[in-house]
Amino acid sequence: MEENKNILKQWVLSAINNRSSKELKEIFETIPNIDIAEAVADVDDPKQLLYIFRVVGSEYSAEFFAELSSEQQEIVINAFSDKELMELISDSYADDIVDTIEEMPANIVTRVLKACPKDLRGDVNRLLNYKDNTAGSIMTTEYIEMKDSVTVKEAIETIRIKGKDAETVYTIFVRDNKRTLVGTVELSDLIFSKEDQVLSEIMDKDFVSCNVNDDQEDVAKKFKRYDLTAMAVVNSENKIVGIITIDDIVDIMEQEVSEDIAHMAAITDMEEPYLKTPILKLVLKCAPWIIALMILQIFSTMILSKFEGVIGQFAILAVFTPLIMDAGGNSGGQTTTMIVRSLSLDEFSGKDYGKVVLKELRVASIIGAIIAVFAFGWLMFEMSVGIVNTDSILHLVNKNGGNYNAYMALVASLVAGTLFVTMIISRLVGVSLPFLAKLVKLDPAVMCGPLTTTTVDIISLITYFLLWTQIIGPIMGIGI
Amino acid sequence: MEENKNILKQWVLSAINNRSSKELKEIFETIPNIDIAEAVADVDDPKQLLYIFRVVGSEYSAEFFAELSSEQQEIVINAFSDKELMELISDSYADDIVDTIEEMPANIVTRVLKACPKDLRGDVNRLLNYKDNTAGSIMTTEYIEMKDSVTVKEAIETIRIKGKDAETVYTIFVRDNKRTLVGTVELSDLIFSKEDQVLSEIMDKDFVSCNVNDDQEDVAKKFKRYDLTAMAVVNSENKIVGIITIDDIVDIMEQEVSEDIAHMAAITDMEEPYLKTPILKLVLKCAPWIIALMILQIFSTMILSKFEGVIGQFAILAVFTPLIMDAGGNSGGQTTTMIVRSLSLDEFSGKDYGKVVLKELRVASIIGAIIAVFAFGWLMFEMSVGIVNTDSILHLVNKNGGNYNAYMALVASLVAGTLFVTMIISRLVGVSLPFLAKLVKLDPAVMCGPLTTTTVDIISLITYFLLWTQIIGPIMGIGI
Repeated sequence: MEENKNILKQWVLSAINNRSSKELKEIFETIPNIDIAEAVADVDDPKQLLYIFRVVGSEYSAEFFAELSSEQQEIVINAFSDKELMELISDSYADDIVDTIEEMPANIVTRVLKACPKDLRGDVNRLLNYKDNTAGSIMTTEYIEMKDSVTVKEAIETIRIKGKDAETVYTIFVRDNKRTLVGTVELSDLIFSKEDQVLSEIMDKDFVSCNVNDDQEDVAKKFKRYDLTAMAVVNSENKIVGIITIDDIVDIMEQEVSEDIAHMAAITDMEEPYLKTPILKLVLKCAPWIIALMILQIFSTMILSKFEGVIGQFAILAVFTPLIMDAGGNSGGQTTTMIVRSLSLDEFSGKDYGKVVLKELRVASIIGAIIAVFAFGWLMFEMSVGIVNTDSILHLVNKNGGNYNAYMALVASLVAGTLFVTMIISRLVGVSLPFLAKLVKLDPAVMCGPLTTTTVDIISLITYFLLWTQIIGPIMGIGI
Repeated sequence: MEENKNILKQWVLSAINNRSSKELKEIFETIPNIDIAEAVADVDDPKQLLYIFRVVGSEYSAEFFAELSSEQQEIVINAFSDKELMELISDSYADDIVDTIEEMPANIVTRVLKACPKDLRGDVNRLLNYKDNTAGSIMTTEYIEMKDSVTVKEAIETIRIKGKDAETVYTIFVRDNKRTLVGTVELSDLIFSKEDQVLSEIMDKDFVSCNVNDDQEDVAKKFKRYDLTAMAVVNSENKIVGIITIDDIVDIMEQEVSEDIAHMAAITDMEEPYLKTPILKLVLKCAPWIIALMILQIFSTMILSKFEGVIGQFAILAVFTPLIMDAGGNSGGQTTTMIVRSLSLDEFSGKDYGKVVLKELRVASIIGAIIAVFAFGWLMFEMSVGIVNTDSILHLVNKNGGNYNAYMALVASLVAGTLFVTMIISRLVGVSLPFLAKLVKLDPAVMCGPLTTTTVDIISLITYFLLWTQIIGPIMGIGI
């Protein structure tokens, strides 16, 4: 794979440098555009880039242009004559043009808009005005729309004439006299039907559409649920204003997932490739969260601090606090991750909360019991073989008398009991916070992990020290 | 949305119960199959389910059947006559049949295979034999393949006749005399071309295909990279054996992402919806990881335990260990998440490791400095206002003399210095482990998070206590 890339790179560069138009054309005919764009990713000489566009046919140039980096696109536009720019643009789709100029300086935007034919310019301007992450901002305006009274023969004829400018000809959108969207016809349906049938007879009425203001994540979910390859975008009057195709949705699915993953790990976002992100931006993505989480820790610090005297008296208690806090954090993290994922896949809605909590109570009790039993055995082992320093216990036995092994078992029970409570609390909190976030219309992925950990830390530390000061400590003869 | 679902449910059930075939047909004509399937999700009466299949036309039944739960599918198959089963099956695609029978008892599998026409049975058997997660296991065998010498007119004629049985007619796969795949033709290209052109003139030669044994995740990446809607699956002799369509890829993308997310949070996997997963399965997904991580903590327990005496002497040290461990864990988690995501998106390969580490060194130093400065100020604040109990320091001043404020600053510096080291180590470890996992061909998502935390815990605790016992402690006159 890696080797193929390098070979292609050599081949493309040699074709450009030798000014071999035959070779270059052959490359474009046999290799996908994106691979060629990657091969010339380092080329920033306007002459070399221009050579490519002058040699390859218009059937490749617009798509190839869309695959270049925005720096390269800028170089090409600056080097193009007005006529060349107009040709390129008239071969491009409105949504690709919008993607291009969104990252360009103002003078280039003006030049590109000037080069657009009037219709296209209107479309581009409209697309530029839709809010980010809405259906409107990702749709394109090159689609085929026909009246429901058109015959199959006429429809195919129209596709032959107008189809080349459309982003897809596989779904034709059908409207009635009032310009309301009433159905869709697949190109295959046209092929399978008789020439004199009209569209209203063969169209699918159970089509799915979305509103221009719908969130792009919801649009992606519809594509997935209904196995669509293209979907109509309508305005509030149910008139079609654009379409979205599956290739854009695939990108959006990935973008939304990256966002969710980033939020769960407390990173601001990951919309840019790591190697291209400036150092300071990486710092700003990560450092504020670490600070915020450190501030949130004030509560567990307060609790630990309140029991500092207890720790000074019986230092072995301090050895087990990280173990308890980590186990609670891990368990809460598992639960939150599962619930956030299920919520984002719409596996359940807010009203399933009761059902989920009841289920979690049972799951958590079993996990709590397993972990408590394991922890008791594990700690007894750690203390017996000397992995854990038991000087505190020895000291106590020497001072007050009492059975060393029984005291060891009491300490292990203290940790085991705390872990039992911690497992149950961590899963209940891990379930509840994402639901709460959804209820108040926040993204459940944001901060739920860290907030769960903080809440669980507080409750488990209090449990630990209360169990000690109220029950286990007094049994062992340590008055507080 | 939720309300619409309930209304639809009432409507469908009333149509079934009133035996209103007209109403039921209308529902199927205007509502997508998956919505209807969801509305009848609770129906397990064979009579009611059979009624649906007897009323609705064959254009809906196969697709609707594929959307039912496997319990319902089993009920329907059991209730069907052999003739009805054969009709349903001959309307189904081979990959849907495979999905259905993979979860069925043996007697049903036998009955379904018997009901398959001979060709289809061969396809189904072959699909059942491909390894899970390979291209072969997700492909379907209903595609349109033509020789490169066929004319456009003949091609359209063939599509008219054979197209209804194919999963897609939008991509036609073109082979030469030796049955080798040599190109693809889009249905739109046929529409735009002259009737007497032959396929070899108009086909795309820069098509992308995959091997039957390719991993499904790699196939999904190709779909995304090349904006495909259908892809040929070839055997080792470059002969086409099946195709994969974009709707299956969308499901796979989601499945792979769920796997990655689950692994990062140390859950075994999340292939089933939460509410449908049995309680014991949920326990088994989570509990073993908690235990494994607890065992991994043996190292930090050992370190804390080794310094138990130090803690007994100066208990305030115990208050800050969770803060340091959490900050290290959070920072390592951020880094691992970013790197795992970038690796899974193929943003860089193994040989970029040096570049990434150099970048991280710079990022980590800046973050370390910011966090150290912040932590110093924050701890001074916490100690000054009494959030942190400073009895240990007071006690020391009373015993040995010395400046209380200077001692507080020394303790804050101890934590700040440890955090500076922790930030750098956590990011370097967080970067290195995923690369290491990739080098030894493990999934970088698995365990990298927890392993990073454990490693960082060890190093930061050692740093903390060494800084104390070797530098800060002696300055404050505490001999160890």
